[in-house]
Amino acid sequence: MSYARQMLDTYPRTVNVDASVLAAAIDAISDCAQACTADTDADLSEQNLAEMVKCIRLCLDCTDICTATGAVISRLAEYDPGATRPLLEACVAICRSCGDECELHAHYEHCRVCEQACRRCEQACRELLDALK
Amino acid sequence: MSYARQMLDTYPRTVNVDASVLAAAIDAISDCAQACTADTDADLSEQNLAEMVKCIRLCLDCTDICTATGAVISRLAEYDPGATRPLLEACVAICRSCGDECELHAHYEHCRVCEQACRRCEQACRELLDALK
Amino acid sequence: MSYARQMLDTYPRTVNVDASVLAAAIDAISDCAQACTADTDADLSEQNLAEMVKCIRLCLDCTDICTATGAVISRLAEYDPGATRPLLEACVAICRSCGDECELHAHYEHCRVCEQACRRCEQACRELLDALK
Amino acid sequence: MSYARQMLDTYPRTVNVDASVLAAAIDAISDCAQACTADTDADLSEQNLAEMVKCIRLCLDCTDICTATGAVISRLAEYDPGATRPLLEACVAICRSCGDECELHAHYEHCRVCEQACRRCEQACRELLDALK
Repeated sequence: MSYARQMLDTYPRTVNVDASVLAAAIDAISDCAQACTADTDADLSEQNLAEMVKCIRLCLDCTDICTATGAVISRLAEYDPGATRPLLEACVAICRSCGDECELHAHYEHCRVCEQACRRCEQACRELLDALK
Repeated sequence: MSYARQMLDTYPRTVNVDASVLAAAIDAISDCAQACTADTDADLSEQNLAEMVKCIRLCLDCTDICTATGAVISRLAEYDPGATRPLLEACVAICRSCGDECELHAHYEHCRVCEQACRRCEQACRELLDALK
Repeated sequence: MSYARQMLDTYPRTVNVDASVLAAAIDAISDCAQACTADTDADLSEQNLAEMVKCIRLCLDCTDICTATGAVISRLAEYDPGATRPLLEACVAICRSCGDECELHAHYEHCRVCEQACRRCEQACRELLDALK
Repeated sequence: MSYARQMLDTYPRTVNVDASVLAAAIDAISDCAQACTADTDADLSEQNLAEMVKCIRLCLDCTDICTATGAVISRLAEYDPGATRPLLEACVAICRSCGDECELHAHYEHCRVCEQACRRCEQACRELLDALK
């Protein structure tokens, strides 16, 4: 069981969302933030740098948005929908853009792995948005 | 002149938004992130801790969202509206919630200062959203 | 296999450190950052808030230091020992302090889980420091 | 007066370090984190990308370390020297490395501005380390 799930199961307050959906989103976001950081660095090691610039920029945005989103939804007891919903929508959008760009470079295995992390994160954030309705 | 403005004025690409509006948003976001971090810590030093819990949680969210937003809009050349707009909307929303909560505790000077930082950030992000239309 | 390990195995450059030690550190740091964020929030939900203040502050520091350390060691190809070693030492130190404090509150299950995440992270960072010698 | 200084002046506890030294460090760190984020993006817009890769990597590390350091020293009431001192040393080291690298590219005005932000941050962190002795 992931630490995120263990932390939710020992939380002193009731969280008004399915714990497995929330834990899955936290874990997917955390993995995606790290994968995008690593992919930025891998991209910087490739020969055809000019073709990788867009991928680098999107990976940087994706890491930053995922890091904030993961922290905010880890504190979901005091749920502020006005901020949390658009933040999750931003996370879905950047994961889609970053996943699409990584797919274009999927002949690089690191971009293929990063694409998987982005797709899984996008899906997990969508499911959390649905569960928060 | 702030570093944010200097960096924009020396940027090798054209940024399709008024540099003074963008620099003002970057500076206000950076100040707000720091003020909320400091206010979290100041709140934790007060006697009536139970009354400060909501303020602490909102300050933590505000710092995280401001940090991500400031980074993303510092890389605005590759502007991805699908992610940047909801992110700025999340930033406006959390600054308003956090500013409102700080206002309730404005008898503490640190909350009064933090409220000012949140209000200024909310306004600067609104102006950037308008400028990006 | 974790994303961190997959990203390392597909990295275009040679990383001069055992990939399993590095991946273990990245994963432990990522888990610890999240556990500390969640524990901060759980602490804020307890009745005896005054006794939890030190734990909250240390968890906040631990999250911030882990987040930076995890990002820097995810870009280890351009290893700058002058910055990376003290950063890892700071991470070891805050994980020990935070783990010790959580241990004092281990009657709260969330602090017990957070202590485990801190201990595992401290150990993984020590092993990475040894491997980087 | 900066928000950092105002927050320190309204802090409910006594901070055992000169407030002007601490506020100067917080402000310099915040500026440096933003300048390095902007310089990463500016570097990615240059033609001779291969020559800018080291600068990009160091700027990314510098942003991450500055962000963590700024947050930790904004919560200095519960000063943990075992973590804070090596963290500040890591910040000094990465600002020096990043400033040196930016100096090599100072024909680009954005690197010249970023170098200034790094040098100022390095100096402010050194002064804070001295003041914390």
